[in-house]
Formats: sequence, structure tokens, C-alpha cells
Amino acid sequence: MLKRSLLMVYTGDGKGKTTAAFGLVYRALGRRWKVGVIQFIKGKWVTGERMHSKKIEAVDHFVMGEGFTWESQNLENDKAAAREAWEKALSLIEAGAHKLIVLDEFTYPLTFGWLDEQEVIERLKARPVHVNVVITGRDASAAMIEAADLVSEMKLVKHPFEKGLAALVGVDF
Amino acid sequence: MLKRSLLMVYTGDGKGKTTAAFGLVYRALGRRWKVGVIQFIKGKWVTGERMHSKKIEAVDHFVMGEGFTWESQNLENDKAAAREAWEKALSLIEAGAHKLIVLDEFTYPLTFGWLDEQEVIERLKARPVHVNVVITGRDASAAMIEAADLVSEMKLVKHPFEKGLAALVGVDF
Repeated sequence: MLKRSLLMVYTGDGKGKTTAAFGLVYRALGRRWKVGVIQFIKGKWVTGERMHSKKIEAVDHFVMGEGFTWESQNLENDKAAAREAWEKALSLIEAGAHKLIVLDEFTYPLTFGWLDEQEVIERLKARPVHVNVVITGRDASAAMIEAADLVSEMKLVKHPFEKGLAALVGVDF
Repeated sequence: MLKRSLLMVYTGDGKGKTTAAFGLVYRALGRRWKVGVIQFIKGKWVTGERMHSKKIEAVDHFVMGEGFTWESQNLENDKAAAREAWEKALSLIEAGAHKLIVLDEFTYPLTFGWLDEQEVIERLKARPVHVNVVITGRDASAAMIEAADLVSEMKLVKHPFEKGLAALVGVDF
């Protein structure tokens, strides 16, 4: 019962992974924690969560991976961007000022083999004891699930895009 | 493609349902929306999300159901509390000032038969076209899933309580 923080994973093909991570941010802010967010995938659009983070002093929100998008054509750039994002994340985690660190879409650079997952897991396990970490993204590996304290799989039951509804500003991003 | 809002359901036995709903709140705030939150179950503890909502003017957060807790012994009180909470929710939805309304733990009074689910669904479908609604809780019914635009099931893969870790302030509540 002595463990002071959790390593959490939100994975699966359903909606709600990144969203749940920002729910943890919301809750953490109620406890007056500092929060760090590292987004490993840079989307095409400005997101509501990014816009909100900018207004909150206790949240340090980094959108990493310039050029590292879903539509990238340059693998070496993407690898370098992923490494840079991980170094940034690790420096925040090890500094220990933030009690919650969100590694958003972090499963992808691991799945793609752009980072050494075993090393990543070891560094995460060796983190300061009060620093909670949440990782989001599809296809979390067996090794990451084994390392985590809490794993929820978001399962797609019904998605509005199936019904021909476009993504909605404010809800989807 | 004309639909302007979504009815969303986060269900399942895993962690992240209420959390994801508050992630939607976080995102919505980035878009400068007003948000309404109705909590249908009153927990024993003050929550971080409630504490944070108090600090944000754009969020109207109601913890309903005095006496309606997981440990209640008074069924008639619980039913009345659930009806009162639903009336509150409906008045917010129909007023249309909030572009996102969270009905937290709303599946339970429906599952228990304390509210007429068919009527609830009809009222939700007839809501103002710009009002997004998200419902959380285990065991969403087939009728609710049918009515929803988006449904994610949070599946329990690994839960820290299984490992003998106590609930953590700031992460779990």
C-alpha cells in the first residue's frame, strides 16, 4: 500500500483515450497539482485541449514532433521528433515538479520501433515516486501493459463517423 | 452531415468513464463553451473534479442526490433524488445555454428503473440541436446505445485495486 503514484495506460480503438487523460488533468488541477502534457503526434488542427491548457498556469503543455503527423513522408524526421519528445518527457518526469504527466499518443513511436520500449519502461519505472504518468494510444504492447498499474481499453462500440457525421469542433478535438 | 451535436455514452467496467467526460469538459472550455455537469451519484468524498469546477466560471457543476449514495438504505429517497437530478439536467439541456452537458453516472438510475428510460431518451433526442450530451456509467442499455451517436466501452484490463493499491487522491477522485 506504499506506492505513491500510478503508471496508467488508456489504449484501444475507441474514443476517449486522450479525452480521459485530460479528465485526469482536470481532476489533478482540483488538487492543485502541476501537470505536464507531451503530445507525441502533432495533428493538423489546433485542439480545444491545447487552447485550454494555454490559459492555465499549472499546465505545461508541449506539442512535439513538428513534421511528425499522421501524413508524414519523412521517416528520419519522424524518428528524430519522437526521440526529442521522449527526452522532453523524461526531463519533466525526472525533475519531479509535475505530479501528473500525460504522454499523449505515446504508444505509436513505441509500436513503430522509433524508441527502445524496454528502455522507456525502465525509465518510467524508475521515475520519482510521486509522479503519476498516463500514456494514451492504440495498441499498447504486452510489455507496457505488464509495467502499468492501471490499464483501460477504450472499445469502439459506435462511432459517429460511421454514421457519416463529420468531426465536431469542441467535441472531437 | 447536418447534425450539430452528439449524444455520447461512456460505459463499461473499466476506469476512465467519468474521467473522459471531464476531458470533454476540458476541451470544451478551450472552445469557450459553457458546460453543465450533473452528478447523479454523490460519493463519500469531495472530488478533484468538483474542486476544479468551482474555480471555473464557465462550468456549472451540480452534485445531486443528497442521500443517494452507493450505501443508501432508503429507496424512496433515492428515487426522488434521481428524479430531481433528471429534472435539473433537463432544465439545463432545454435552456440551451451550455453546449456540453455531462450526465455523470446517469446509467444507474436508468438501470434501476427509477426513471422511465424511454421518456428520457425521447427528451434527449428532442434537445436543442447545439447541445452535446455525454452520459457515463456501467451497463448502458441497448436502447441508450441505439439512441447515441458515439459509444465507447471502457474495458477493465488492469486495475490497481487488484494489486492492493489504495485509491489515490488526485488520480482516482
